[in-house]
Parts: sequence; C-alpha cells; structure tokens
Amino acid sequence: MKFVIVNGPNLAYLGQREPELYGTEGLESLPAKLHDFLGASADRVQLDFFQSNHEGAIIDRLEQAWKEKTDGLVLNAGAYTHTSLALADCLRWIQIPCVEVHLTNIYGRANSLRHTSLIASACTGVIAGFGIMGYVLALQALIHQLTLEDR
Amino acid sequence: MKFVIVNGPNLAYLGQREPELYGTEGLESLPAKLHDFLGASADRVQLDFFQSNHEGAIIDRLEQAWKEKTDGLVLNAGAYTHTSLALADCLRWIQIPCVEVHLTNIYGRANSLRHTSLIASACTGVIAGFGIMGYVLALQALIHQLTLEDR
Amino acid sequence: MKFVIVNGPNLAYLGQREPELYGTEGLESLPAKLHDFLGASADRVQLDFFQSNHEGAIIDRLEQAWKEKTDGLVLNAGAYTHTSLALADCLRWIQIPCVEVHLTNIYGRANSLRHTSLIASACTGVIAGFGIMGYVLALQALIHQLTLEDR
Amino acid sequence: MKFVIVNGPNLAYLGQREPELYGTEGLESLPAKLHDFLGASADRVQLDFFQSNHEGAIIDRLEQAWKEKTDGLVLNAGAYTHTSLALADCLRWIQIPCVEVHLTNIYGRANSLRHTSLIASACTGVIAGFGIMGYVLALQALIHQLTLEDR
Amino acid sequence: MKFVIVNGPNLAYLGQREPELYGTEGLESLPAKLHDFLGASADRVQLDFFQSNHEGAIIDRLEQAWKEKTDGLVLNAGAYTHTSLALADCLRWIQIPCVEVHLTNIYGRANSLRHTSLIASACTGVIAGFGIMGYVLALQALIHQLTLEDR
Amino acid sequence: MKFVIVNGPNLAYLGQREPELYGTEGLESLPAKLHDFLGASADRVQLDFFQSNHEGAIIDRLEQAWKEKTDGLVLNAGAYTHTSLALADCLRWIQIPCVEVHLTNIYGRANSLRHTSLIASACTGVIAGFGIMGYVLALQALIHQLTLEDR
Amino acid sequence: MKFVIVNGPNLAYLGQREPELYGTEGLESLPAKLHDFLGASADRVQLDFFQSNHEGAIIDRLEQAWKEKTDGLVLNAGAYTHTSLALADCLRWIQIPCVEVHLTNIYGRANSLRHTSLIASACTGVIAGFGIMGYVLALQALIHQLTLEDR
Amino acid sequence: MKFVIVNGPNLAYLGQREPELYGTEGLESLPAKLHDFLGASADRVQLDFFQSNHEGAIIDRLEQAWKEKTDGLVLNAGAYTHTSLALADCLRWIQIPCVEVHLTNIYGRANSLRHTSLIASACTGVIAGFGIMGYVLALQALIHQLTLEDR
Amino acid sequence: MKFVIVNGPNLAYLGQREPELYGTEGLESLPAKLHDFLGASADRVQLDFFQSNHEGAIIDRLEQAWKEKTDGLVLNAGAYTHTSLALADCLRWIQIPCVEVHLTNIYGRANSLRHTSLIASACTGVIAGFGIMGYVLALQALIHQLTLEDR
Amino acid sequence: MKFVIVNGPNLAYLGQREPELYGTEGLESLPAKLHDFLGASADRVQLDFFQSNHEGAIIDRLEQAWKEKTDGLVLNAGAYTHTSLALADCLRWIQIPCVEVHLTNIYGRANSLRHTSLIASACTGVIAGFGIMGYVLALQALIHQLTLEDR
Amino acid sequence: MKFVIVNGPNLAYLGQREPELYGTEGLESLPAKLHDFLGASADRVQLDFFQSNHEGAIIDRLEQAWKEKTDGLVLNAGAYTHTSLALADCLRWIQIPCVEVHLTNIYGRANSLRHTSLIASACTGVIAGFGIMGYVLALQALIHQLTLEDR
Amino acid sequence: MKFVIVNGPNLAYLGQREPELYGTEGLESLPAKLHDFLGASADRVQLDFFQSNHEGAIIDRLEQAWKEKTDGLVLNAGAYTHTSLALADCLRWIQIPCVEVHLTNIYGRANSLRHTSLIASACTGVIAGFGIMGYVLALQALIHQLTLEDR
Repeated sequence: MKFVIVNGPNLAYLGQREPELYGTEGLESLPAKLHDFLGASADRVQLDFFQSNHEGAIIDRLEQAWKEKTDGLVLNAGAYTHTSLALADCLRWIQIPCVEVHLTNIYGRANSLRHTSLIASACTGVIAGFGIMGYVLALQALIHQLTLEDR
Repeated sequence: MKFVIVNGPNLAYLGQREPELYGTEGLESLPAKLHDFLGASADRVQLDFFQSNHEGAIIDRLEQAWKEKTDGLVLNAGAYTHTSLALADCLRWIQIPCVEVHLTNIYGRANSLRHTSLIASACTGVIAGFGIMGYVLALQALIHQLTLEDR
Repeated sequence: MKFVIVNGPNLAYLGQREPELYGTEGLESLPAKLHDFLGASADRVQLDFFQSNHEGAIIDRLEQAWKEKTDGLVLNAGAYTHTSLALADCLRWIQIPCVEVHLTNIYGRANSLRHTSLIASACTGVIAGFGIMGYVLALQALIHQLTLEDR
Repeated sequence: MKFVIVNGPNLAYLGQREPELYGTEGLESLPAKLHDFLGASADRVQLDFFQSNHEGAIIDRLEQAWKEKTDGLVLNAGAYTHTSLALADCLRWIQIPCVEVHLTNIYGRANSLRHTSLIASACTGVIAGFGIMGYVLALQALIHQLTLEDR
Repeated sequence: MKFVIVNGPNLAYLGQREPELYGTEGLESLPAKLHDFLGASADRVQLDFFQSNHEGAIIDRLEQAWKEKTDGLVLNAGAYTHTSLALADCLRWIQIPCVEVHLTNIYGRANSLRHTSLIASACTGVIAGFGIMGYVLALQALIHQLTLEDR
Repeated sequence: MKFVIVNGPNLAYLGQREPELYGTEGLESLPAKLHDFLGASADRVQLDFFQSNHEGAIIDRLEQAWKEKTDGLVLNAGAYTHTSLALADCLRWIQIPCVEVHLTNIYGRANSLRHTSLIASACTGVIAGFGIMGYVLALQALIHQLTLEDR
Repeated sequence: MKFVIVNGPNLAYLGQREPELYGTEGLESLPAKLHDFLGASADRVQLDFFQSNHEGAIIDRLEQAWKEKTDGLVLNAGAYTHTSLALADCLRWIQIPCVEVHLTNIYGRANSLRHTSLIASACTGVIAGFGIMGYVLALQALIHQLTLEDR
Repeated sequence: MKFVIVNGPNLAYLGQREPELYGTEGLESLPAKLHDFLGASADRVQLDFFQSNHEGAIIDRLEQAWKEKTDGLVLNAGAYTHTSLALADCLRWIQIPCVEVHLTNIYGRANSLRHTSLIASACTGVIAGFGIMGYVLALQALIHQLTLEDR
Repeated sequence: MKFVIVNGPNLAYLGQREPELYGTEGLESLPAKLHDFLGASADRVQLDFFQSNHEGAIIDRLEQAWKEKTDGLVLNAGAYTHTSLALADCLRWIQIPCVEVHLTNIYGRANSLRHTSLIASACTGVIAGFGIMGYVLALQALIHQLTLEDR
Repeated sequence: MKFVIVNGPNLAYLGQREPELYGTEGLESLPAKLHDFLGASADRVQLDFFQSNHEGAIIDRLEQAWKEKTDGLVLNAGAYTHTSLALADCLRWIQIPCVEVHLTNIYGRANSLRHTSLIASACTGVIAGFGIMGYVLALQALIHQLTLEDR
Repeated sequence: MKFVIVNGPNLAYLGQREPELYGTEGLESLPAKLHDFLGASADRVQLDFFQSNHEGAIIDRLEQAWKEKTDGLVLNAGAYTHTSLALADCLRWIQIPCVEVHLTNIYGRANSLRHTSLIASACTGVIAGFGIMGYVLALQALIHQLTLEDR
Repeated sequence: MKFVIVNGPNLAYLGQREPELYGTEGLESLPAKLHDFLGASADRVQLDFFQSNHEGAIIDRLEQAWKEKTDGLVLNAGAYTHTSLALADCLRWIQIPCVEVHLTNIYGRANSLRHTSLIASACTGVIAGFGIMGYVLALQALIHQLTLEDR
C-alpha cells in the first residue's frame, strides 16, 4: 500500500512555530513515529512525505499521487483548509481516500474562520486536536478502511 | 485508568438505523473492539458504557463521572452536538479530557446545521468519519495523551 | 393499522393554556373525536396516545413505535419542532410515515423562530392552523396514503 | 356555502409535470374528488375552480370572490407563495378564510427558498405534502370551521 | 403638461380595504382632489389615471407613457414596490420624472419587507404616510420641479 | 397653530455643502418660502426654526416643544436619521405629529446605510427628494391633517 | 406568599464549577440567605427549591407550580436560557410572575450565544451579574411587585 | 428543429433604452442576424419570436412550446431572471433545453441583486455580456448540443 | 461611600412619558426611595444624581466621577445603551463598578434593536424590568459587592 | 490578432476528471477545435495555450500577455474564479478584453460558493455550461467584438 | 499652512486610560512632539488642538475649520469612528484633506465593531497602531501631500 | 537593523497599472526614497526588496526573513490582504514586527471586500492611502518603535 503525507503552509517549521499552541515537536519526527506504528507491516507500506507553502504545488503533488495510483492520503492543509476551493476540487476528482488532519482542535478555536473546512466534504474523515499523534491515527484509520474494503 | 464511553440520542439502534449512512454494525460490538485494542493493558483500564436519548441524563452521567474521578471521556453526542449548550457547559466545568466522536464526517455533510459543534470548544479533539473504528482511535488518543502527561 | 398520536411539551394542559390562542378544548376530547371520524372502521385501527415534556422521552416513545411496527404517526412536537434536531434524526431513521400537526398556523405567526421546522424534512406532510381538528385531518391523510400504497 | 379553489402558476399541467415529484394525477380529477367528499351535502355547496399563470389575474379573481361574497378559499399559489407580496396583501384585505395548500411538503424540501411563505400570515392554515388529497382536506377544514362559527 | 397617475395591485378597492389602515376614502375621489388643487392651471394640465393588479400591464402603461411623451408620473406601486425589479428597470429606461407615493408610512411599519423599495432609486422622490393627500403633494412637487427646470 | 422646523447636523451650511447633491439654496430662504405658502393664513400660524449639530440639543428642543404644546414638527434629522435611537424614543413619547423630511431621495441612494430610518416609525410620514420644497410640502401635509382632525 | 426557586443544568455543583467565573459559594447557602433577607416576614412566605439538568423536568415543575397556585418564580435556567423555546412557552402559558436570574453578566460575556435569552420575553425582569446575591434581589423584586399589585 | 426566442420585460424597446448600457441596436435586427448565422441550414430550422412584459404570459408561452414539442429555447428573462421562481419552475417541468442570455454581463454589474439568477439552475447554460450577438451564440450552442445528442 | 446615579436621554420626564410602558412615577421620587432603603447607613453614603440627553455630557460626568474617586455607578443610559460605543469605552477605562439599570425588560421587548447592549460588557451586572425599584436594587447590589471586597 | 487561452487549477486532466460532470473530452482537443472554427482566417490569428494550478503563475502569464500586447483572453479560472481577488485585480489593470468560460453552468449548481465570480466584473462576458464548445463560442465572441471596434 | 488636530471621546485622559492598551503617554506631549518633527519649518505651520467628548462639538469645530480655511486635519475620532455618520457627512462636505489616526491597530482588534470605520471613505488615508507617533506620521503625510499638490 | 520590504500580486507594474487610482510612480523609485529618508543612518540599516505574485513564494520569503533574524517587515500584500489566511498564519508565527501598507485607502473604497484585512491582526499597524510615501512612513514607524524598545 502507498500513502502520501501532505503538509501545507507554515508547517515546515513545526516545533519552532507558536509552541504553546502547536507543541515543540517538529515534522521531522513524523517518519519514525509512523514506522513505529506500522511495526512488522512496514515492509508492505510505502510512505511519501511532502510539504509546501504553495497551493498550486500541493495540487500538483496530489495529481501526481493520482498518476502513481496512491492508495491513501493524509492531508494537513493548514490555512488552505479554510480558503482553497481548488484543493477541494482536486481531492474530489482524484478520488483517493483522504484523511484531514489538524494539530489543534480547529472546530473549538475562538476564531470562527477556522470552523469552516472547504475540503471536509471531499475527505473520508477528520482527526483534529491530537498534535503529531493525529497523523498516526489517520494512517491507522486509512489502513483499517482499505483492509476492510479489500476483503 | 477509568474511561466512560457516552453515546447520545438515536445511537441505541445503531446497525439498524439508516445502514447506508451509518453501517450495519451495532454499538454492542464496541466493548469487544475496545478490549481487542487494549490487549495486555486491558487490566489497567476500566471502561464504562452509557447511552441515553435524554440530554439531562447525559449531563447527570457526566457529573457522576466527575464525582468518580474518571480519567477520560469518549463522547458521541449525536444531534445534541449541534444544539446542546448545556452539555458543552457541563464538559467545561468537569474538565475531564474528552474526545468528540462522530460516525460520519459531519463537517463534510451537505446539511450545514451539522457543521457547527457547540461542544467542540470543550473537547480535546474530534474524530469523525470512521464509523465504530472512531471510538477505538479516540480511546487510543486519550491514553496516549494521559500517558504523556503522566511522565 | 396501528397509529401513535404524540404530543410534545406544554400540550398536557391544552384548553387551559392561552385559550385566546389555542382554544378552550383540551386534548382529552381527542380520542372521541378520532373515533367519531373513524366510524365503522374503528375496529381495524388501534390508536395510542402519548404526551411528554421531555425531548428524550418522545424519542424513546418513537423508537418503541418502531419496535412495535407502528403504521403511522401524528406528531405535534410543540416547541421542539423548532429546536430538536435529535427528534428529526429519530424520525429519519425509524421511517414511519409521520404527519406534523400544529394547532396554530405557525408559518403565519409573527415570531420568525416559529417559521423553521427542523422536523418537516422528516415528515410526510404538515397540517397547521386548525386546532384539534388538525389531528383528525392528519389521521385521515395517513390512512388515505397507507390505503393507496396497500393497493 | 360558496368556495373558490384557486391554483397558481405551473399547475395547469399537473400530472404531466415532474411526476416523480408531483404524481401522475391531474387537476381535472379534482371536482369529482371534492364532490365525492361532500356526498349528500354537495347541494348546499357551490365550488368554483380557477387556474392562472398570471399573478395579476389571481388577484383579480380573489377580488371578484370578495364581490361575490365567497365563504372560503382553497389556494395553491405555486411559486407565487414565495414571491408575491401582492397576493398576500389581497388576502389580507378581502378577509375571506383561506387555506393554503401545497402538493409537496414545501417546508421539508431542500431548497430553502421554498420554506418562506409570504401568504401564510394571511391564511387560516396550511396543508402540505398530501398531493391532490390536500384540497379535500382543506375544503373539509374550511367547512368544519365555518360550521363552528355559524353556531 | 401631461401626467399619468398609476396605481398598482389592491388599490382598486381603496376605501373598502382595511379602512383602519388605509382610510375610508376611495381612489374615485382622486381626480376631483387633483383638479381642486390645480385650480386655474387645470387647463394646461392633462391627467390620466391607470390602475392594474398586473405587473406586466403597469410596465406596458409606462412604456406607452414614454411613447406619448408624458411629462411626469405619480406612482403607487403597492406591493410591487418591494418585489418588482422589472418595474424599476422600466422607470430607469423611460426616464420620466416619477414620484413614488404610499398611503401609509411604509418605512415606519413593523414588517421589514415594507422597508425596501426596489423602485426608489429610479424615482425623483418619495411621499409616504399622508393617504390620498399624498397624490396631491406629489403632483405639486412634480409641477414645481418641471417649472424650475423650464426656466 | 404652532410648528417647529428642526434641522440636524451639517444643515447649517446648506447651499455651500456639496451643491451638486444638495443644491445651492441655503436654509435662510426657508422662512420666506413657508410664509409665501401660508399666504393669508400666516397670521394664525407660528413657525419656529432650530438647527443643531448636537443630538442631545435636538432632543432638548423637542422636549421643549412638548412643554410649549407645539402642534406639529417638521424634522430633517440629517445623519441622525440613521443612527439616533434616542431621537426616535423622544418622538415616540412627546407624541407631536412629525413629518420626516430629506433633501435627497435617501431611499434611492447607493449607500445602503441611508435606507434605514430609525425615526420613521415615530413619524406621521416622510417626504424625500424635493430639496427645500420638501419643507413646504411637509408643512402643508401637517396643516391638512390637523385641520381634518379638528373638524 | 408562595415562591419556587428553580435552577437549571450544571447548577447543582455550584461552588465547585469554574470558581474563577462562578465563585466558590454553593447553592446550599441559598435558603439561609433568603431567610435572612426575609427576616420577620419569613413566616408569611413559603420557599420551594428545585434543580434539574432535564429541560422536561423543569417544565413539569413549572406546570406543577401553576397547579399549586404559586405566586412567583425565580428562575436561573442556565444554558437552557439560550436554547429552550419549550421553557419559554411554558412560562408564557402559566403566567406566574418570573424573574430571570444569572450568576454572571451574560449580556457582557464574549460568547455571543449568551446574549440571546429565549425566555426573557416571558419574564417580568432580569437580574444578572451578582452571583448568589442575585436570587435575593430577585425575591425582593417579586415581593415588592406583588405587594404593590395587592394594594 | 424548432426554437423559440423569448424576451422578457423592458426588451421591446431595445436600442432606445439606456443605449450607453444596452447599445443602439433593437431586437428587430435579431431574425436577420440569426438567419445569417444559420446560412444554408436555415431551411431545417424554425424560429419563433416572443416578447412580453407579463411574467404569466411568458409562462403561458413556454407551456405552449412544450405542447408544440419545441426543441430548444433561448431566453432573456430580463429582470424576471432575478425574481421569478414561477418561471424557473416552468422551465424545470417542460424540460426543453434552454440557454439563458443577457445583453450585459450581469454577474459583473455593481448591483448585487443582478448576481442571483433564479432560472440558472433550470437552464443548460448562460451567455452574458455580448449584446445581441449573445442570441446567435446561444442558438449555435443549442444546435451544437442537439446535434451531438442526435448522433 | 460615594455613588452617582446617571440617567440618559428621555428620562427627565419620566412619569409623563408613555406611562403605560414606563409607569406614572417620575425620577424626582428616586432620592427619597434610595434614602429609605439606606436607612441608618444613609450617613455613610453620598448620592449624586445626573441626567442629560447629551451623550458627550454623560461621558464628561463619568470622567468627573473618576476624578472624584466615586465608588460606584448606577447607570440607565436609555437609548444610548444600544448605540453609544463611546460610553462603553468610557466605562471600560474609568473602571468604576457600574450597574446597568433599565425600567423595562429590554431583553424581552419585541424590537430586536433593544436586545443589544453595547455597555453591558463594561458593567458589573444588569437589572431590568422593575421600574424605579430597579435603582434601589442596583444600589443594594453595589453596596453588597463593595462591602464584600472590603473585607 | 493574438489570443491566449488560459486554464486554471484541475483542468490539466480534463476528460479524466469526474467525467459524468465534465465530459470525457480533454483539453488536448481544444487547439484543433479552435482552428476548425477559425477556418480560412486561422492565418491571421495566433493562439497560445496556458494551464497552471498556481494562482501566481496565472497572474504572471497574464502580465506577460500585457507585455506582448495580446488582443484578447479566454479564461477558465476553475476554482480561482470564486476565491482569487488577485486574479481579478490583474485583469482589471491589464485591461485586455477577457471572456470568462466555465465547462458547467456554475450559476445553476447546488453549491452556492460556485455562484460568486470574483473575476466577472473584470471580464467582458461569461459563457458557462457548454463544455469545451464554450471556448469556441468565447473566441468567436471576442473576434466579433474586436472586429466591430476595429471598424 | 494651517492644521487642526482633533481628538474625540475618551482621549482627554490618555496616559491614564487602560495604559496596557494605550500606553502611559498623555496627549499633552503631542504639541512638543509635533514641533520637534517640524523643526525649522515650524514657523510656517500653525497647529490647533481640539478635544471633545461631544459628537456635535466636533462637527462644530470641523465647520469652523472650514470657515478658517484650514489646510489639513488630523482626526482621531475615538469610538465615533465606528458610529458617527454625521461626522462622516461633515468631512465629506468641508472637503479638507483629513488623515484618520488610531492609537491601536483597530483593524486587528478582536472586537469586530472596531473594524468598521464610517469616516474612512471621507478621509485621505489612515494610520493605526503606532500610539502618539501616529499623529506625527499623519502630519508628515499631510504636509507631503499638500506640498506635492502645490508644485 | 535589517528590514524586508515585501510587495504582493500586481505590484510589479506599479506606475503602469490603473494610474488614475495608483499613481504613475513605479516601485523602482522606492529604494532611493527610503535611502533619502534614512539619510545619515542609512549605513546602519539594511533594506531588502521582494515582490511576487505567488502567495506561497511570499510565505517562503517571510520564513527566510525569520531565519535571517530580520528586525522588521513592511508588507503590501495586495489582494492577498483580503484572502490569504496562510499569510496571516505565517506573520503570527515568525513574530517579526510588520507594518501593513496600502497605496490607496482600502477602508474607504466602495468595494466592501477591500474592508476586511485578514493580516491586520498579525501586524503592528497599518498605513493606507498615501501611495509610495506610505512605505517611507512605515519604515519610519518601525525604526521608531524598535529604537524605543531598545532603550
């Protein structure tokens, strides 16, 4: 199984950015965490990582995922979650199962702009509020779902 | 560690209710699934289950959880998610870490009434769209978080 | 054929409540009126009556109706018409034909809160503005519809 | 007693128009259905039928009803229900008891434009969702109400 | 100078319509009132009167006024004031000075639908709240204005 | 009969202020214009004039009018028309017939802030769009109305 | 004189709930405080206390108050203040003078959901922001008002 | 193939109406322009033209088109585009392919009332901003589409 | 202890203003009422009274209160409650405990403009609906609160 | 004459993307279609094609078009139509005639986010709902318009 | 060159008002700061200072500035920025270049009432967020602009 | 001290773009103007300039500024001011003092889309309406502020 973990704008410096809100752990710890979780099954799973501040580059990457017949996506679109209809359109046409991840519980934040996710309706599900652990849960959910469908 | 899994209105008959939307699996499979997930650590974890169609009864149960010094809550408040400010007030004062779970991806459903969660701002995080698997992910997230804080 | 006539909050004292708005006739006259209407066919029709001020109790009663394979519902949900998404969810999953009844013409009242019915989209139809006569018209409509489908 | 049954725009071809939504029965079956319902009392009741796609023509007809001292109106104003303040003004000044009828349950339809009835506040009541049977229920409600007042 | 006094829907029966709101005086007294006001100058002024419940017929009449090189319009569009963009478009292209008249003070009425005039931006001015006297004031204002421009 | 003509903020320099919008004629021409209109009946009519940029001073003046048993008010409240609830409250309690005057047709101006009059519901009527002529029409309307009531 | 002091959801544990917002004093001190205030007149006044997290149970209690001919109500409906139309309907029909009490100044809190009181229009008055002292002020206001009416 | 070109209110005098906005060319040049475009294929195409200021008359004409088995419609509904739900309902039931045409680019005009087309959802497509040339493009699009489907 | 009782616009003539809404008692009875309430402790309390229709004058008075080290404020800002952000800003910076008083229950009045208090968030609490008695309750609440803090 | 055909995000894979909505024909067929349409005049017309998922890259391309003195633009901005104010600003300053094209009839789609075009007010016209044929119609409209102006 | 520096409500006590938000420096330091900035050119520049809590007094002062042929205005209208349409009207007619100054960055503050400036559209520009330094920048901008125009 | 002057979309061709709105001076004059202003202190100040039409590229540049320990930012984000939440997020985490500059007074422009700045809450202050002079004022404000903090 092939997955891409996609991170959007302002996520490259995670760990250094507003640590009281986002924690002190950076994205660089993510691959190890995901391999830990996969354990023995790590051989059968290929994980690609991608980060960009460019809305267009993220769409390019998702289209490439479609060409490479990727099985699932874990996507933290950052602020583009709330403003990028183009990203949502892309998810809708490539039709690869995608889990929306957010480090914080965006639906509980004071700023109401954060309560609207344009991409939610193009995703399988959402996991928000668990920091980097959220990516692990998302991968787990995707594998669970794909395995069920496989049977 | 002590947890309560709380389910709100219209969840008693899960598996028989709109199966094309909510799946054919009922809540009765939930204890087994959670014990499976806990594996060896099941001894150290106590799980209580509660379901009610009554907003007041759910609040009563949460207040009792506070008296019993419960460590964490997994809450699927059903439609009360969108209408019960009283439930949100309760979560805010008992201050027990709580994960909001939804069977479907409510943020992606067409009905915009489903996009507003009154309780989100009183919860640690949200997991939506993964059916009954969502409860397992929620428990996992809670234990992960409590273990971290413990250290 | 089996029907349940369900009345929601503040309807127990009908006849004594704001009579200039709701009339002086109480709910206790309802069974007789319905039997009058049924006439000869009263034998083949079973009518149950239920009233509660509790949102949860009404949902419990509707779920019981589903277990008892009730053929139709006449529902005056009172103020819950405008605030109870949980009630609407329940009607949607039990899928028993239901006619929404209101004593007054809620869509014509000055208070715009009364113009939104959360349950309407889960009902077959609505009858509003005819006082207690509305229940008779509702039962008649339900029987008419069930008879048509039967053929 | 004298009644006028008024139908608004796009109702002339009922039965041929979107039958999956409005059914296959045309308005031409309406007089027979109403006479059936009246039974023995049909002699004492005069029914007039009017249909027009013109907002102005419907107002002209209602003013004529006022001149002819009509006892009651059954009105399906079609789309004018939602856009014609002029029609509402007319009902308000002629002050003939009027029942608003809709073939479908407009308050339950997805399109929120259909949830606002400009004429409701000028009507005695509303009956929606029962197809052509709705006209029979409306006439019945009007006669019931007029008989009560007569006493 | 040539003027047309145009009255819209539900104004034909003025004096008989909701007299507590609109007074007991009918439109038939209008010509005499206007001639009284004109006094000696009545010879040089031609007044035409038009009333219709049809939005389209009012537009037809206004287009005819344009063909007849009418100098000014006094228009009480009734409920079309609030709903007819087509009427407003017509006033905009014929470019004949037009005074908007209302019998009641629509901007002070409780119903907020009455506070929006689609035609106001295509009119010279508005006079509201003075009953039939409003038409006299409107004609006076139009003549005053045309005389000023003439100089 | 005793009247007060009250002008609000930014009206002291009329004639010098944005003449393309408000004309070149100043308020100082107003007394003469009104006496012209009154003609022979000028003896029986007392006119007072008041202008202030202060919301509070206008309210003080209106309260004084109430103490002096003034028969009618002509009020151009300028921008306070749209923002002063206190002015509206005052008009409501002193209950002196008041005509709202505006130099321009505020309901037709592009700026939608100008379409809401807080004071309209406390006034007899409104006259807008006729420049200084509007005050003459307003006085005429007031006298007409008071004379009618006198009879 | 007979009064009922009714407290809604999340008020049972007052003193332990968010003390920085609601203070450390519990509801159990309330009877003593009210008797203190009543002083000598305590004999002639009967006070009943009721608390519930159930919307329906509060309505049941209010209906019972009506049957017992209670003279006045002091009601802190907690979060139901903002969401329960059914509670408001009940107050409207039982027509017992009721003072709405809130521990905090809800109209001044940041959350705008707290600014809308559905029950205010069915109450005599509101007292907010004075903690438990608010109940004393409310009782005092009720007695003052009832005594005035008695004379 | 049979087409009807339908024009709504205020389009009869095109060329004389606000020429700086709508151009100086009248509708009378339209038949020639369309025949020019059709060239050799003009024999196989029947074009009917209809213009009315009456909403009801346009609906009547569309229903007639349905009876005559018309293949396609080109519709410029003028201001009714933004206010006539009845027209939209009609297009929805007759189900004849219809292209919405506007002389100006309504979606780009300052007035936001012009940005909402009630009829768009019942049309195949929209062409706006090209003056009378728009009708030619619309006919071309319809023929292209019908020819494709024919194959 | 030093208090200022501040009354805003349209309160000078209380007792003569809309007595069916505001009662027949004037503000002149207020000092006596407050002294009555204070009883023996009247010596230790200094009460100043201020009324103005001028927003600016009220702000001037509040700033003076700050200079005079006033202990508390009772403020009925009349209509400025709903429109004066400047008054709210003043209360926020002088930081003198202030109780907002209204003669009527503004939160229950039909006019929704009355439901928004700009000054509430800068006040300790609000007392509305008890007529002149409200000022007594407010003073009592202030003294209670200041005494508590003193301890 | 020189034209650029610009396509925005998610249009590179047209024909493979949601074919039930957008058809099975890809953009690669576009040049041939446009040359077919141009026929003999193809020599005098230069067509450039550009597609990008990057908002900034599209703006760069439009600025280059301005430097190259391009005569006209055909622009399908995809989802950027609804979110890119920057694109609209660019069209406004380069002032090259531009036709907005959409494959589907966006104004008729259920999602109301699709009804707002930020770029419409900077375009000559809009053509929506005709699939790839829309580009041909757009080019035709541009050439027609440029030829007219040339004369 | 002649300038007036106008300060609105709650600015008299700057330095003592909410110092954590507005700083500890008072307005009395302003003249010195401005003279410092002017340096050698101070002779050719006349600066007047005005502060008032009265909306009307500020308008009076602005009208006086117009009579005195003032060259420029620096205006911090405090809370009147957001509520005074009358002030905006005044700026529009006196047409003296005016720079809007705010001590804090009002557009970035949480309270959305602070994001709307009624006077902005009548000002040359806005400078917000730099405390008292903002007045210096504003004067500098005004002089720069007037010098440019002079050439 | 190190500063970056960042310009967003459509600013590369300043001076050639809508000169009646933005002036005829290009960005290329900016360095000289800023050095002029700095005068003797130019040695101690390093200025970098950056312009891009790409939202992502601007974020990249800001992140680089953070890595380079830049002291301050002057940012004219063009249209991204109103649509880029990602840019605002970036400013919030890098926490470099930033002044928002706009050539025109965006808060006074007719288009209300221009009144909302998503980035304002992440900036120190805003300067709008002074053309290229605004950048000079911004730099001056930044240096003033940094010098104050340094002391």
